[in-house]
Amino acid sequence: MKQKINFYSGPSILPKQVIEQAQASIENFENTGLSILEISHRSKEFVAVMEGARALAKELMGLGDNYEVLYMQGGASSQFYMIPYNFLLAGQTGVYIDTGTWANGALEQAKLFGNVHIAASSKNENYNHIPKQLDIPGEAAYLHLTTNNTIFGTQYHFTENPKKHFGIDYPLFADMSSDILSRKMDFSAFDLIYAGAQKNIGTSGATLIAFRKELLQKQRKPLPAMLDYAVQAANQSMKNTPASFSVYVSYLTLQWIKEQRLEKIEAQNNRKAQTLYDAIDASSLFKGTVAKEDRSLMNVCFVIGDAALEKKFSELATENGIVGIEGHRSVGGFRASIYNAMPQSGVDTLVQLMEEFERISG
Amino acid sequence: MKQKINFYSGPSILPKQVIEQAQASIENFENTGLSILEISHRSKEFVAVMEGARALAKELMGLGDNYEVLYMQGGASSQFYMIPYNFLLAGQTGVYIDTGTWANGALEQAKLFGNVHIAASSKNENYNHIPKQLDIPGEAAYLHLTTNNTIFGTQYHFTENPKKHFGIDYPLFADMSSDILSRKMDFSAFDLIYAGAQKNIGTSGATLIAFRKELLQKQRKPLPAMLDYAVQAANQSMKNTPASFSVYVSYLTLQWIKEQRLEKIEAQNNRKAQTLYDAIDASSLFKGTVAKEDRSLMNVCFVIGDAALEKKFSELATENGIVGIEGHRSVGGFRASIYNAMPQSGVDTLVQLMEEFERISG
Repeated sequence: MKQKINFYSGPSILPKQVIEQAQASIENFENTGLSILEISHRSKEFVAVMEGARALAKELMGLGDNYEVLYMQGGASSQFYMIPYNFLLAGQTGVYIDTGTWANGALEQAKLFGNVHIAASSKNENYNHIPKQLDIPGEAAYLHLTTNNTIFGTQYHFTENPKKHFGIDYPLFADMSSDILSRKMDFSAFDLIYAGAQKNIGTSGATLIAFRKELLQKQRKPLPAMLDYAVQAANQSMKNTPASFSVYVSYLTLQWIKEQRLEKIEAQNNRKAQTLYDAIDASSLFKGTVAKEDRSLMNVCFVIGDAALEKKFSELATENGIVGIEGHRSVGGFRASIYNAMPQSGVDTLVQLMEEFERISG
Repeated sequence: MKQKINFYSGPSILPKQVIEQAQASIENFENTGLSILEISHRSKEFVAVMEGARALAKELMGLGDNYEVLYMQGGASSQFYMIPYNFLLAGQTGVYIDTGTWANGALEQAKLFGNVHIAASSKNENYNHIPKQLDIPGEAAYLHLTTNNTIFGTQYHFTENPKKHFGIDYPLFADMSSDILSRKMDFSAFDLIYAGAQKNIGTSGATLIAFRKELLQKQRKPLPAMLDYAVQAANQSMKNTPASFSVYVSYLTLQWIKEQRLEKIEAQNNRKAQTLYDAIDASSLFKGTVAKEDRSLMNVCFVIGDAALEKKFSELATENGIVGIEGHRSVGGFRASIYNAMPQSGVDTLVQLMEEFERISG
């Protein structure tokens, strides 16, 4: 069977080493004689996984002990409502920048709990850029943004501290589901960060949350225990049985990131994106869909703009072992998700196919 | 290495066949050339897993098309608040029977949303029995019970339709986390059933929910999308990325149950429990902790009542490959969880050790 090249947007490509370790632990986890799937979350072996994963995520993000790092269930979409449930009291305002389907999903959920102020939206342009003109209030409970928009292929590229950039002195929250730990950054510039694990830091079922502990001091209302960040923190992410295997796979992926070094991963990610965007810019057939300055290094969206040709290229890609480059229905065309685990060779193969296709279709 | 005998209360023993299939799919899932961990939840291969698991759960429970069967995240503990959030409007009353730590956890969460009426509680007797004297109101939003109390080792053994038993004509909801699909029963006698998968139907990360569709007709308030059963149902459990591997392992486990036949599993479960309780009753050293008529067929709790002897027996068990029989701290002593996948031979080994220990300690 031809080797597959996996451009899925998530769940998505994982390092080979992670898959092999996960597979071995399904048979015999840490020499316990038991599968990782059948050991108690209260066993010392699993507690070490949970504690190790939380500590390593904190280390890789360079966060200090003033941050709490937790694993939860329910995906980033569950953070959409948990954030306002915890931090947006009635009468308070949450500020949102509407840069895509998920950013919009987050602000819609906040409306159930308090006031929502939309600082800017690129919705009317099908989210093809990150809005630059912002209406940012002087006071608010928090500002929420999505650092990378998986569906539309845009990403924030801050050149200064983001709170300074936005001119705010209140908390800054970010959904980093599709670009967390794909580049070096000052994670402590954010007061709360969350990310579904299934793109750069594992498989589905685990959600990473990091937040400044002082956020818990804010006046809060009575919450269901499972939805209360303070309760989850007090129970070290084990208020109830966690999605143990998903946390384990995330831990393995974080270990791989540490071994590779984030600097090197960032350089590789830059080069992969450059290769693909250069090919798009050099092509008279393939066209990028977003503003150049906002291009995502993770999700590269491009179209031909001719349904018959797009179908043909799709078929050629499939024949050549490429999986998952169909664009989201909101954009059409193609989307190559080139997360940390995607090697340069995968992108090179895609680019060669694009060039070949342009020759034969030209 | 000595073969391990896994008595963990959850995550817990899985059929060997399930572990082998899961392991194979981590390398190459359904001949896609990709790991199950890295395929999109929107791929046709994974959609078939989700649809297959939901359909098979419905089939094994003998539920008709008037039931919705979903997989969600967050464990049974998330259902503790989702149920009242969806179905307990302000001013309405939810009736709860307080038979253990989790039953109590469920009623505590309901207090955030409406009135809670505790029909009975065995809390003052450390939940060593299922209360028989009940104060059941004539009208309520629902009655909630826990069919099997994992920590304390008690279980409902209904001899008639449970709604008839309780004399109610309003909805009956049940947490079946630790005994779902361990015995044949009329699941349609319940209007809503939920269960964490990590005992009898898979590993952690997946939660099964089945409910009568007509429940969604009831007057409901605006809810976060992720917490709204109607939204989850309309999206076939894929409102967002599910815990895909956990759903897959549950599907494999349900397939195993179907192959084994539930009648046969029930007979084996009865025999395993009988073997262990007979040994306890015949012993002058080991004592059962709960009322005989309420004994759980899933979690068998017993003590010696002498800390030094209990420590010695624990050591003997460990030397003989037994894992996970320490009792929960609320009860002490021992708890042998003997879910579907535990073979009779595992129980026989434990009983032999108990008898040997009684001889040498006698």
